[in-house]
Amino acid sequence: MERVPILKIGDILLVSIQLDMSDQTAVQLQEDLAERIVATGCHGVIIDITALDIVDSFVGRMLSTIASISKVLDAETVVVGMRPAVAITLVELGLSLNGIRTALNVERGMELVAAARGDESDDQYDDDADAETARP
Amino acid sequence: MERVPILKIGDILLVSIQLDMSDQTAVQLQEDLAERIVATGCHGVIIDITALDIVDSFVGRMLSTIASISKVLDAETVVVGMRPAVAITLVELGLSLNGIRTALNVERGMELVAAARGDESDDQYDDDADAETARP
Repeated sequence: MERVPILKIGDILLVSIQLDMSDQTAVQLQEDLAERIVATGCHGVIIDITALDIVDSFVGRMLSTIASISKVLDAETVVVGMRPAVAITLVELGLSLNGIRTALNVERGMELVAAARGDESDDQYDDDADAETARP
Repeated sequence: MERVPILKIGDILLVSIQLDMSDQTAVQLQEDLAERIVATGCHGVIIDITALDIVDSFVGRMLSTIASISKVLDAETVVVGMRPAVAITLVELGLSLNGIRTALNVERGMELVAAARGDESDDQYDDDADAETARP
């Protein structure tokens, strides 16, 4: 069975999908990713789909599932490298990638993950600030 | 024809090989990589072969060719993610990966590229130092 490799780069897990996904490969990828997120404590998952000519409902659902699993494990998911034709087909098919952030390329995806983590720290900071101003 | 995606991360181009390479795919990858190195000015090429069960003489030669092309274009090539079984087979087949550096994973590969670039700057610095001491 084919297995999609998961690459760790800093705080991010990178997955480059190049094969047509079978049911088994998709389930295996979800399990592998969940395990790696827990093992590494990474806070970002970037899925590169540059190589995909078509994103059908099966792949769309797989991406949504991965995003949901990652979310539960405190990691952001960003899908990068979507081709213009794929985006058009997605809209024409009426498929919405629920809960999935997208970015043009891996670097922007990394920035998005960093920004999302930064926002969370900012929120925390804001809460503190509010608490302080509320004190007197 | 399948095309292997090339991902740019900072100063590095990352290629994850997951398919069995045909002649055409290999040539296409070499051309694409050369173009991307020139277009981006990247100084490192990291090739991930985690997904490969076998590295035969064809793939070995392709990796060597990529390393040579990159070298000419002033970029270091590091092959990462080689499985233990693949390493054993390589040695048993008597294949040597000429001019190819290897690292355990992408992160260490990046460190290796950074170190190689650092060494070069150091060399330059040493030359300057020698020149200075030679002056009087």
